Amino acid sequence: MPAWESYLEEHANRFVEELIEFLRIPSVSSLSEHVADVERAAQWVAERLRAAGMEAAEVLPTGGHPVVYGKGPSIPSRPTVLIYGHFDVQPPDPLNLWTHPPFSPHVDDSRIWARGASDDKGNMLAPILAAEALMKTTDTLPVNVKFFFEGQEEIGSPQIEAFITGHRELLACDVVLGADGSQWDENQPVVVAGRRGLCALQVDVYGANQDVHSGTYGGSFLNPIHALAHLLASLHDDRGRVCVEGFYDAVESVSEEERRLLAEIPFDEQTFRAKLGVRRLYGDPSFTPTERIGIRPTLEVNGIWGGFQGEGVKTVIPAAAHAKITCRLVPDQDPQDIVEKVSRQIRENAPDAVSVSVTPLPGSGLPYKMATDHPGNRAAASVLSRLYGTAPYIARMGGTIPVCGLFLRHLDAAMVNFSFGLGDENIHAPDEFFRLQNFRRAQRAYCMILEELVQHL
Amino acid sequence: MPAWESYLEEHANRFVEELIEFLRIPSVSSLSEHVADVERAAQWVAERLRAAGMEAAEVLPTGGHPVVYGKGPSIPSRPTVLIYGHFDVQPPDPLNLWTHPPFSPHVDDSRIWARGASDDKGNMLAPILAAEALMKTTDTLPVNVKFFFEGQEEIGSPQIEAFITGHRELLACDVVLGADGSQWDENQPVVVAGRRGLCALQVDVYGANQDVHSGTYGGSFLNPIHALAHLLASLHDDRGRVCVEGFYDAVESVSEEERRLLAEIPFDEQTFRAKLGVRRLYGDPSFTPTERIGIRPTLEVNGIWGGFQGEGVKTVIPAAAHAKITCRLVPDQDPQDIVEKVSRQIRENAPDAVSVSVTPLPGSGLPYKMATDHPGNRAAASVLSRLYGTAPYIARMGGTIPVCGLFLRHLDAAMVNFSFGLGDENIHAPDEFFRLQNFRRAQRAYCMILEELVQHL
Repeated sequence: MPAWESYLEEHANRFVEELIEFLRIPSVSSLSEHVADVERAAQWVAERLRAAGMEAAEVLPTGGHPVVYGKGPSIPSRPTVLIYGHFDVQPPDPLNLWTHPPFSPHVDDSRIWARGASDDKGNMLAPILAAEALMKTTDTLPVNVKFFFEGQEEIGSPQIEAFITGHRELLACDVVLGADGSQWDENQPVVVAGRRGLCALQVDVYGANQDVHSGTYGGSFLNPIHALAHLLASLHDDRGRVCVEGFYDAVESVSEEERRLLAEIPFDEQTFRAKLGVRRLYGDPSFTPTERIGIRPTLEVNGIWGGFQGEGVKTVIPAAAHAKITCRLVPDQDPQDIVEKVSRQIRENAPDAVSVSVTPLPGSGLPYKMATDHPGNRAAASVLSRLYGTAPYIARMGGTIPVCGLFLRHLDAAMVNFSFGLGDENIHAPDEFFRLQNFRRAQRAYCMILEELVQHL
Repeated sequence: MPAWESYLEEHANRFVEELIEFLRIPSVSSLSEHVADVERAAQWVAERLRAAGMEAAEVLPTGGHPVVYGKGPSIPSRPTVLIYGHFDVQPPDPLNLWTHPPFSPHVDDSRIWARGASDDKGNMLAPILAAEALMKTTDTLPVNVKFFFEGQEEIGSPQIEAFITGHRELLACDVVLGADGSQWDENQPVVVAGRRGLCALQVDVYGANQDVHSGTYGGSFLNPIHALAHLLASLHDDRGRVCVEGFYDAVESVSEEERRLLAEIPFDEQTFRAKLGVRRLYGDPSFTPTERIGIRPTLEVNGIWGGFQGEGVKTVIPAAAHAKITCRLVPDQDPQDIVEKVSRQIRENAPDAVSVSVTPLPGSGLPYKMATDHPGNRAAASVLSRLYGTAPYIARMGGTIPVCGLFLRHLDAAMVNFSFGLGDENIHAPDEFFRLQNFRRAQRAYCMILEELVQHL
């Protein structure tokens, strides 16, 4: 047993205690009342990096939520690895659906329950603990290690591109290890060949200048909810395909070989349906569900509201109706181009009896692709095969990690998925949790891959 | 000047103080937290009837919000008039749009501002004050007067039909005077020949068993907001006509004569548009706006909600999406029949990839018609002509007073519109108000019509 492994075992309880402390900070990046909590989380991370024995660890401003930069010992002859993660979290609502309060972590035999447990605090803390184990037992690290943790991932990293372009030297590296994401399941690892991008917008429809009586006025003018329903309904056909003109134009056609690799991943529809609790799957019948999530774009309405939502009946015609929309994008769709296409179509279809405004929301992310035989992926595959006792799947993931595209564009560095959440851990939902076994496995995995990368880079 | 008129003038300030006291009670019938306030309002009304010198005044149970019954002196040779109104009010939300808090009445030179000022506390208090003036100055009333005030009008009077059928003797009368509703404008009275009915329902669409990540799962199953948007959009065509099968089947064809009377009422579209703040009117082009409000039915979505409504972006596919719908009905549509037709169509159009439930909501009301030359209407026309110096319009009103149909069906008594609100008084909306001049005019009008009815009945 390597010395770092004994160290990790010896300090396992303390590490869980530290994760609990980290999870208590409600670092919700999308809500302005939590700005100070995001800052507090950043300070906590920097402090934790220093405690792990890193040479440098500091909170750096971005103009929005801050980032944390850290660095291990310099070893000029060795390659440089940048480890990425984020310390901000999704909003916890609806609060009433949580079994335990989202920011009062609850630990049972095998899991830790809290907002951010899996996405991404549990995952991003693991490489820091791995670096501590290596430092305390070998007094150095196998490669040059840089840490780059951000506080705006859940709002689409609005200031991160500018930060990266302004700090190319500081962040320069041979490969990025992404401590945000997941493995396939408890016993099956995955190498990620791509991730979808993201863009976001809001639609606001205005009718009368205030809510008015549906008896006194109903029939004389257009109800903004009716107009919104027509606009939203026109965005999809009855098979679930997006009906926005030009939406699919830039979509790269995926090779038969890659579709074959995707088809090799076992997919049990009944289990998948049961997990979601839906009676049947739905979407473009030209693609499998795995493909619809991995290599096909979507347009989803994430929220709607307008008028009376309370108990009973209120006979109003509301002054306004609203919708929030995000699109998941695939190579080579461009977030700004898609926002423009969706906005244009909504504006063109808007009836002139109401006022319709379409506003881009911050939070776009480029779609991402990476060669399956990239040296970083080979190192990951080797470590994952040893840890899990089985070869990883080669997959495209449906979620977005906006910095993937940014690291590639501005640092010329690909990002290897190297994180240990699982798809059932209720991320972005009530009762988020992280498996303690994977928290420990992630710590071992990072010690192993830092040693492994010496061979591949 | 009759003695009652001097009495009204002498006590005008006290009457405003009493209205303020009445308006302070937040008797919101649709919200369960205000049950005790509705009861408190009932007790206040009964007490006020006793103070006015009525022989009987009591709060009676209904199984829901209570009613108040009152009675003046018995004069066997004279006809009997039942005066109707309601002491419950609409919910005040959105609270942030009120200039003054809704239950802290604000009085300026000409208006009193509060939830319920016009609908209906100001209107229903006036006949009580009129009765007091007559009692205190003549020691009797010109006719037998009964008072019947309810506390469930704003939720569609769910227990009132059972109460009326169970108290036919108590409520027996020759005609009803309705102290709920409005006049045409400040200088123009109206005789009401009909009112629309009402029915209500809620649509709930369920997808996954909880909100899920739109990256991890988006594309694999149907978003319930998308399904709801399609269902709502299918309820109207692009001219605003309702597309529910059979919706218009029972609509009575209105005579050319009655359409001519309606067309005589001046309608200035520009003023109407400006009041609402809409850029253009909208609806079935075969009917004028006045007709679309008065003699045509509607289906309006009063509220929608689902998913994320907060600041920023949250990339979820929500577990559910909801809509509240009410229809305004005209003779001879039946509320239950229309709820069934709308429900059936929604259920039949519901995609099987989501669960759709349609639930009738309490609050139906029969559409209502009344002969323009009914003795009650002739008495009203005479009083209104004298008070305003001009003959009343003959109109159909778009709003619903559910008890109209019930009085006709169970007491064989027609209800004369005899109330003094105006259409711009923001009823069911923020900043509701009542004109003090009309509060005083209503008191005089009730003294006059009680005297006038002796001639007509």
